[in-house]
Formats: sequence, C-alpha cells, structure tokens
Amino acid sequence: MYSIAQYTDFFISYLETQIIDKEPKNLYDPISYMMALGGKRLRPTLTLLTTEIFGADYKLALPAALAIEVFHNSSLIHDDIIDEDPIRRGKATVHKKWNTNIAILAGDAMIILTYDYLQNYDPNLCKDLIKAVNKMGLEVCEGQIWDVDFETRQNVTVSEYLKMIEYKTGALIATSMKIGALIAQTSQENCDLIYEFGLNIGLAFQLQDDYLDLFGDTLTFGRRLGGDIISNKKTYLYFKALEITSESEKELLKDLYAVRLEDNTNKIKTITDLFLKSGVAKATQESIKKYTNKASKILDKINIEEDKKKLLRDFAESLIGRRV
Amino acid sequence: MYSIAQYTDFFISYLETQIIDKEPKNLYDPISYMMALGGKRLRPTLTLLTTEIFGADYKLALPAALAIEVFHNSSLIHDDIIDEDPIRRGKATVHKKWNTNIAILAGDAMIILTYDYLQNYDPNLCKDLIKAVNKMGLEVCEGQIWDVDFETRQNVTVSEYLKMIEYKTGALIATSMKIGALIAQTSQENCDLIYEFGLNIGLAFQLQDDYLDLFGDTLTFGRRLGGDIISNKKTYLYFKALEITSESEKELLKDLYAVRLEDNTNKIKTITDLFLKSGVAKATQESIKKYTNKASKILDKINIEEDKKKLLRDFAESLIGRRV
Repeated sequence: MYSIAQYTDFFISYLETQIIDKEPKNLYDPISYMMALGGKRLRPTLTLLTTEIFGADYKLALPAALAIEVFHNSSLIHDDIIDEDPIRRGKATVHKKWNTNIAILAGDAMIILTYDYLQNYDPNLCKDLIKAVNKMGLEVCEGQIWDVDFETRQNVTVSEYLKMIEYKTGALIATSMKIGALIAQTSQENCDLIYEFGLNIGLAFQLQDDYLDLFGDTLTFGRRLGGDIISNKKTYLYFKALEITSESEKELLKDLYAVRLEDNTNKIKTITDLFLKSGVAKATQESIKKYTNKASKILDKINIEEDKKKLLRDFAESLIGRRV
Repeated sequence: MYSIAQYTDFFISYLETQIIDKEPKNLYDPISYMMALGGKRLRPTLTLLTTEIFGADYKLALPAALAIEVFHNSSLIHDDIIDEDPIRRGKATVHKKWNTNIAILAGDAMIILTYDYLQNYDPNLCKDLIKAVNKMGLEVCEGQIWDVDFETRQNVTVSEYLKMIEYKTGALIATSMKIGALIAQTSQENCDLIYEFGLNIGLAFQLQDDYLDLFGDTLTFGRRLGGDIISNKKTYLYFKALEITSESEKELLKDLYAVRLEDNTNKIKTITDLFLKSGVAKATQESIKKYTNKASKILDKINIEEDKKKLLRDFAESLIGRRV
C-alpha cells in the first residue's frame, strides 16, 4: 500500500499521458483545459486506493479512475454554465474562456469519454462498472436539478436537502470507491459496504463544506468566510435553521437571503450569530459527526486488514478533519 | 420481414411502455416530453430493420433502438439551445418550455440513459454496442462543433462541409444500422458494410435536405422554401457555390448571407437564380446521386437475400426519393 498522496500522484502522472490532441480543437482543447485545472483529484485517488485495499494493483484501476474524474469534470463544466460561475480554481470557466455552446458540447463529449475509458475492462467487469456509473450519473443529474429547484422553492426540508447532497456529491464519492472495489473483484458485500462508507463520508464532507463556509478558519479554508451567505446559497445551515428557529428568526433569515448587498459585513454577522445562538452550528457539527460515525461503523464490518482501515480513516480525517 | 412502416410502429409501441415516471419531475418530464414529440423515428426503425435483415428477431433490438433514439434526442435538446431554436416539430423546445439549465441537465441524463438501455444485452454484445455508440457520440459532438465553427469561418471547403455532415448526421444513421447488425450477430464484414451503407445514405439524405430547402416541392416538403437562406444557414449549396462560381458571384453571395431582412423574396430569388445558373443545383443533385450510387454498390456486396436488399432500397427511396 502507498499513501493517499502517492495514489494522487500516480493518477496525475497517468492523466498527463492521456491528453487528447485531436481535431476539432474547439472540442478537445476545452476538455484538456478543464482536466488540467487541477483540484484535489479526490475521486480518482479513492478509486485507486480502494482497488489496493481490496487486494489488487492500483494500475488496473487507472482507466476507471480517469473515467470518474472525466465524468466529475463534465458535470462541473455544465454546473458552471448553470450557476453562471466565471471562475473555477482561479481560472476562467470553460463557458467564459470559450463560450456556452462549446461548454455544452465539451461536457457532452466528456460524458461519452467516461464510457470510452471503461471500455478498457473485460466485458463482464465493463458491464458492472457501467451499471455503477449509470446509477451515479443519473443521480448527479437528479441532485443538480433538485439543487436548482431548491433555490426558488420555499418549503424545502432538511431531509430533502440531505437527499440532494447525497445525489449530487455523495453518489460520486461512493461510486469512485465502488468501482475500485469492483476492479479488485472483491465480494458483492464489500462492494456494497464501501459504497455506503463513501456515501456517508461524502455527506459528512458536503456538510463540513457548508459549515466551514461560515465557521472555517480562513487561513486553512483558503477562501473568504460567508461566501454562501453573500450569494444567498441555501445550504444545510439555512434549511436546518428553518426547521429549528423561531417564527421571527425564520422571517429574518428569509428576508436576509432575499437581498443582495454591496457590503455584507452586517448580513454575515447577523446570520452567524443566529446560527450560533439557535443551535444551528451545533446541529451541523452533530450531523457531520453522525455521518462520520456511520462511516466508521460500516468500516468495522468490511473484511480487510486493520492497516488498510487505517488508511481509510486517515483519508476521512484529511477530508473532514475528523477520524472515522 | 415486415414493412418499414411496421418497424416504426413496433418501435413507437415499445417507446410508449418505457416512459420514465420518476422524481424529480423537472428532469424526467422534459425527457418524456422530448421523446413524445415524434418525428420520423428513422434511426430506431433502421436498427430494428437491420437486425431482421441479418436474420434475428427485431424484438431483440428494441432496447438498442431506444438507446439510439434517446441519444439522438439528447443531441437535439442541446442543439436547440445552441441554435436558439424556440420551436421543434411545432412545439416549444425544452429550453423554451422549461429553461436552459433544465435542458442541459435533461440532455445529460439522456446521454446516460443511452448507455443504460444498452445494459439489456449480454456483456460481450453490450461492450460492442457501447464501442459503436461511443464512436458515434464523439463524432456527433465533433460534427456539431464544426457546424458552429463554420458559421463564422470564411474559408470552409466543400470537403470540410461533407466531413461535418458525415459526423453530425451520417454517423448516427450508420451506427443505427450497425448496432442492428451487431445484435443479429452477423459477420464483422456485414457490420462494416451496413455501416458504410448507412453513412452514404446519411450523406445523401443531408444533401437532399439542403437541396429541398430551396428546390423542394412545398406541398410534399411541408415547409416554406428558402428557410436556410432566410436564416443565413450555410449548407452544401453555399459552400459549393464558393467553390465553383465567379469572384463577383462569390462576393454577392457572401454579402447576401451577411444580412438579415424583413422581406426575403428578392434575396431568395437572387440566390436561387445564382445556384441554378452557376450549376450549383445540378452539382448538388449529382453529389446526392454519387452517394446513393455508392450505397447501392455497397449493398451489392452484402451477403443477404434479394428481398431484403429490396427493403433497404425501398427505405432509401422513401428517404431520398431515389432508388439505390
């Protein structure tokens, strides 16, 4: 076994050999650009790691890891169009650097490339991998639709929000691990357990992301606090507040999330105080803990050596800042 | 063997049993809406027909026919966004009836559904079908990018235009037939020949479409003549004219294709006269004839009974108005 960072490096080295230098440039250049933008390479790292945890060589999993990363990036390109985001990872998004039409088609081609990379496996395994990727792909689309719907719907419940992030974020992390397990040809039970582990880690990860947007350490978090509040992005904290705060606090929150301001200092302070006083911040922490505990219990059930479990616990800690 | 119309009916009956009635409605309703809009169902009909021509039961090909039709419609949804078309088949396009974000995600989900329907086949066949669909899918995206590029590029050649329509239109028709052949488990040679047959028919079909837009019989063509001229859509006739007309005629054409008018009567008449006088209309007819003749020669080589070849000739005639 290698370290998490080493699996990431293995993936990055492989990715660099897979650049598509093909015509038309207006299709393949945006794809190469997006794939080179970087990011944590979390999902392909998980695929490689999981393959080794279940006893096979990570090299077998490289094409599947690439498939997962390409799919993830296709959804980012289309999400950036939908969210009208001009910047990703400090650079222009594809629809800004080229245009929306090219961004739509580059994303489409990347969905197809996902399946193309899976053609590297023998027919039976290929079919199992595609089944897992299809389920994930539809859930990502469904999650994204819910996310868009929630922006305008008034009566979204916490459980609906959790379902949305399970689909939009959890499914990809869970499937990244499951396809690693499938490639290692481990038992069906292990495949299902590692999927559930990934799903709970994914949920904890997203809730942590929601939490740190407001309560993070700016130094380690690396971006300005309160970005979600400034853009009126309704996250777990907002929906939880609508569930547990008083009528007057709910009205205040709804009003604050309906305006866009030049100076957000007071808005962020008011909402931060409200989330702290009403127990929303604490409830979010508890929810993160609940999902990491669930992941930990699932890990106990998986039939692998303790040093391999440790690697998964290390990974969860690096991701969520909490041991599972 | 049944008739072309019967295969279409078999597909339509199957399609009606496959409606996805699932949440979120904002994802699956646009998909059902688009799939129900109708159209000739040309591609799935070809899949069923080809399976029977090579000796297997069309029923085996129904999921693959659906996969092809879903993929085709996903590309129509995204094309309609790109072309800003408000109307398709007399009804509002998905991005107009819902919105662009929903249309992007519905198209994405339909690409994934394409692969999901192919999961109905055993692993070896499934892998072969997906390989064919991947090649087609990337070519459709590439063709669409070229089509968009050509709108603003000045120096497009006829051979570049032909490559574009080969990818954008031909690949789908050719692959519809090839996957029918794969399902019938016929020889590799037959699979390749029927693909080439479909590709040439597809090219002839697209050129005929370009031709009839200006020189069609309004009664049988069913739409107003000169639509491509009104919208300055550069088709085969335009690029051929830039190749064979005089410098002054080229300048006139370029000028005419650069303006948008309220009343297009004179513009259409001037261009029609130019295309007739300069031999562009005749050259287009000859090109259509060339591709139908090529298709006919390919058909001669395919090892099937004469009555089956007749069905393919009937189909080509119904599509292009010309026997192959």
